[in-house]
Amino acid sequence: MNFNDKLDASVAKNNSLLCVGLDPLTFKGNSLKGVLDQTADLVCAYKPNIAFFAKDGTKGLNFLKRTIDYIHEHYQIPVILDAKRGDIPSTSIMYAKEVFDFFEVDAVTVNPYLGFDALEPFFQRKDKGIIVLCRTSNPSAVDFQDLEVGGEPLYIKVAQKVVEWNKKYHNLLMVVGATYPHQLNKVRDLGPDMTFLIPGIGPQGRDLEETLKSGLRPDKKGLIISASRSIIYAQKPRITAQKL
Amino acid sequence: MNFNDKLDASVAKNNSLLCVGLDPLTFKGNSLKGVLDQTADLVCAYKPNIAFFAKDGTKGLNFLKRTIDYIHEHYQIPVILDAKRGDIPSTSIMYAKEVFDFFEVDAVTVNPYLGFDALEPFFQRKDKGIIVLCRTSNPSAVDFQDLEVGGEPLYIKVAQKVVEWNKKYHNLLMVVGATYPHQLNKVRDLGPDMTFLIPGIGPQGRDLEETLKSGLRPDKKGLIISASRSIIYAQKPRITAQKL
Repeated sequence: MNFNDKLDASVAKNNSLLCVGLDPLTFKGNSLKGVLDQTADLVCAYKPNIAFFAKDGTKGLNFLKRTIDYIHEHYQIPVILDAKRGDIPSTSIMYAKEVFDFFEVDAVTVNPYLGFDALEPFFQRKDKGIIVLCRTSNPSAVDFQDLEVGGEPLYIKVAQKVVEWNKKYHNLLMVVGATYPHQLNKVRDLGPDMTFLIPGIGPQGRDLEETLKSGLRPDKKGLIISASRSIIYAQKPRITAQKL
Repeated sequence: MNFNDKLDASVAKNNSLLCVGLDPLTFKGNSLKGVLDQTADLVCAYKPNIAFFAKDGTKGLNFLKRTIDYIHEHYQIPVILDAKRGDIPSTSIMYAKEVFDFFEVDAVTVNPYLGFDALEPFFQRKDKGIIVLCRTSNPSAVDFQDLEVGGEPLYIKVAQKVVEWNKKYHNLLMVVGATYPHQLNKVRDLGPDMTFLIPGIGPQGRDLEETLKSGLRPDKKGLIISASRSIIYAQKPRITAQKL
């Protein structure tokens, strides 16, 4: 089963577009079992950010590995590793091994700055989802992503390329921040069939309703709505996740 | 001692601008001792690429950690971790911990696509070198880095920002590929006092002589010339390094 099928299945089973980000500041126990068990019937995906584990070196990364293993063993929920990787081709091959062969996740986020050949080793993993940064949700995204290139912001040029590449590889997705709904609208027009990962909901940002209006496909799918800190730091992760 | 001082010292001591990239395909022994011992009086820096260690998971990353420790214990050669990190601010703080607090390297490469606030947590590590991707050496660098923005390619816009940020932080460097000397020329004009990391020498590319002509500062410094595969895969790394 490829990533898009696995995602469709969890969206359907849990009737949810919510993705819970796993960005733990400290580790207790053997995995993030508590948060996972409380939310596994409410979400369509989990998204650990590798930096929050790598900050503690190999000890933290072993904890990440055990967390991913726990999800695979207990739940049929796809795991997206937020890693924002990307390097020259021979190096990206190694990063693909890191995320797919060692961590065994179902999808990964990648950075487009180096262009196609830096991403192609990821695209070649046909059963995995490759989520390319298009427009991010941080304030400084304006520095380069919004620069005008031939009458369009750079992130639109990135989106055009991603849509083009996806016609060949069929396993690409995009990160489109929820900061400004008109940006999401524009990217949706370019890629009507694609799925977008949406950060910036919850403490970072905008109304969920507006995001759904701007980004949902007619089939009511095509969005993965990510929330991190609002859920895993909550006193009652299940209640908070249910409210979203 | 900050990164630039440490680099100046090793450049002066070894009379070298050569940086040996450490991108091992397989691991033997406890570190890359052989390559290091044969080249430590010939180079100004070592540059492990984290992907080549992370491909083997935490075992590979422990090997990287031991390799870095070995360099620090035996040689006064700065270590640049080629990691191309960059994420929203709260995540970049964690990546800075990964590279500087766990791996304890002297400098790191970072990706500018997310803009200033994604890089600032790195810049704040005053004694470390932060090497921002400007123009990379891979063929697909043209996809986005060369797109015209207000009459200049995007990578020049990135260079302008890096030069501006460096006026405040003083610990920034740039990656400028050696593929086309006129690109290096342009970036040198923008940042006459800065130091550039130059990949693409050796099997990837162009003549060393032309690169030195286009990129050296009047003080005969300001470049870190990186070669990886040509040295660490050589039968006699020392002889190959001497030839460069």
